[in-house]
Amino acid sequence: MHAITIPEPGGPEALVWDEVPDPVAGEGEVLVDVVATAVNRADLLQRQGFYDPPPGSSRHPGLECSGRIAAVGPGVSGWAVGDEVCALLSGGGYAEKVAVPAGQLLPVPEGLSVDRAAALPEVVCTVWSNVFMIAHLRPGETFLVHGGSSGIGTMAIQLAKAVGAKVAVTAGTAEKLERCAELGADILINYREQDFVAELREATDGKGADVILDNMGAKYLDRNVQALAVNGRLAIIGMQGGVKGELNIGALLAKRAAISATTLRARPLEEKAAIVAAVREHVWPLVSGGHVRPVVHREIPMPDAAEAHRIVEDSSHIGKVLLVTPG
Amino acid sequence: MHAITIPEPGGPEALVWDEVPDPVAGEGEVLVDVVATAVNRADLLQRQGFYDPPPGSSRHPGLECSGRIAAVGPGVSGWAVGDEVCALLSGGGYAEKVAVPAGQLLPVPEGLSVDRAAALPEVVCTVWSNVFMIAHLRPGETFLVHGGSSGIGTMAIQLAKAVGAKVAVTAGTAEKLERCAELGADILINYREQDFVAELREATDGKGADVILDNMGAKYLDRNVQALAVNGRLAIIGMQGGVKGELNIGALLAKRAAISATTLRARPLEEKAAIVAAVREHVWPLVSGGHVRPVVHREIPMPDAAEAHRIVEDSSHIGKVLLVTPG
Repeated sequence: MHAITIPEPGGPEALVWDEVPDPVAGEGEVLVDVVATAVNRADLLQRQGFYDPPPGSSRHPGLECSGRIAAVGPGVSGWAVGDEVCALLSGGGYAEKVAVPAGQLLPVPEGLSVDRAAALPEVVCTVWSNVFMIAHLRPGETFLVHGGSSGIGTMAIQLAKAVGAKVAVTAGTAEKLERCAELGADILINYREQDFVAELREATDGKGADVILDNMGAKYLDRNVQALAVNGRLAIIGMQGGVKGELNIGALLAKRAAISATTLRARPLEEKAAIVAAVREHVWPLVSGGHVRPVVHREIPMPDAAEAHRIVEDSSHIGKVLLVTPG
Repeated sequence: MHAITIPEPGGPEALVWDEVPDPVAGEGEVLVDVVATAVNRADLLQRQGFYDPPPGSSRHPGLECSGRIAAVGPGVSGWAVGDEVCALLSGGGYAEKVAVPAGQLLPVPEGLSVDRAAALPEVVCTVWSNVFMIAHLRPGETFLVHGGSSGIGTMAIQLAKAVGAKVAVTAGTAEKLERCAELGADILINYREQDFVAELREATDGKGADVILDNMGAKYLDRNVQALAVNGRLAIIGMQGGVKGELNIGALLAKRAAISATTLRARPLEEKAAIVAAVREHVWPLVSGGHVRPVVHREIPMPDAAEAHRIVEDSSHIGKVLLVTPG
């Protein structure tokens, strides 16, 4: 088969479409003929040599995919050759075939094309596990998501609205904020021109956010704590703004607040399977019912992955950038 | 009645036993004839002028008490004059009488004298709400409590052991560690001579603590994060080591760990009542059954509260220091 390889870490040009050996479905796995994968920020780090795949994972980038089952390994039940699926991966999505633990498979939701389903697994599992399973966002609460127009952001807005939360977003342009509003966001904050702590406070009668989903890490740590409501929960899923930051424990204590930090990729199989099962139960009906949709910026042929990485690196996109296998 | 007053904030001598107006049981409250109260670190801060009682609370110090019900206010059911009780307070325990919201009352557990019951409410509610309701300590997990010989520590050791956890403690002397071992602690760390991160790692095959209960705040923040296991939870309940500390978000993220910070005193009535109800359901049977006992360092007459504060300030005690009303 063909796959994107990274002979030497570097810029987008480091991504090379090359011939590689086919993967094999091991015990408890299925082999998927990949129709599409999606670009995640973690892929950019992996390309630069900063984020090696966990032991045992494919060396090719790609944390999610969609496609059709080509073979079913030993010990797998409930899936058959030809099934249209999408999947959470610990790597290997940028390829014509990938072997996937069965617990990380989801059916393509009704009413969605196979290719677009590649936009779902990583963002849905990340948002559901952090915002709902860890931070327990409840109806009527206020939810702030940073980077509202990102793949994560566009999904977080829709899921939070679907459960009856009030949604605030930050984004860097009026166009991005407008798209967030179309998806249901109630409070729009341009982080280049406005202070999100002050804006959020004003929009919530001084109360703040019950749950914040953050991808900035250190840069926003202090302001996120300031923006939290009493009993607020800050869920950190990225460190685009740095690794170490000053924590005001006094402020956290006064608010009886909590901070969690997670990544999806490093979780053991059973935790990923539990998240995927929860997503299938709680989110899939919302997607099939048309209440929640993947937001796709562009579909690009997989051999041109470098172009897709340039788009995501520039942050000029809204939603997900997909890579589609040729032919 | 008489109560401890604080005419001017200052050292232990600022505590003055004086005549003051009797409190009255309002709607939803009972009036308790106080038999005993206990000293908490928050009382020391209040005496120094650093921790004002929340609005509507008694101006006298004292976050817990035991005694007998003297009067039942309107809207209270389930309690009668003469009942022996202990109670979580937002203030006013250093007095001959105190008015208490009914949701914060607990019966004196079977087999315990009324005076010693004053050692229970604050530590049991703090430990139960943080270690079990927030951090969800589970059987077989490793639990680290700092200051294992304190009132909080001695209760945390017993409750964690009662649910089947492995317990590690830090303390500053061999005598204190020995007392912790008698209460069931498995891993004993002298923080003056040993590095708790290294000791804990060695004692857990490199795994670390699943739950940490911390009273040090900033001073221990980085080391607590280092000491956490994967999926670990750090529960901060005090800031004896400072308010602002550097948080390594990368380390937190790699461990998929969480930090919570709470105080009990500032919680609204309904949250306190929920904690007290959970304590009555889960902890009271352990106390009545003799599996969990209050550890009392000394009983001192309430007018001599200054002496009790000196003992707690010196950290020379093990367990709780009680103040008993005269006569």
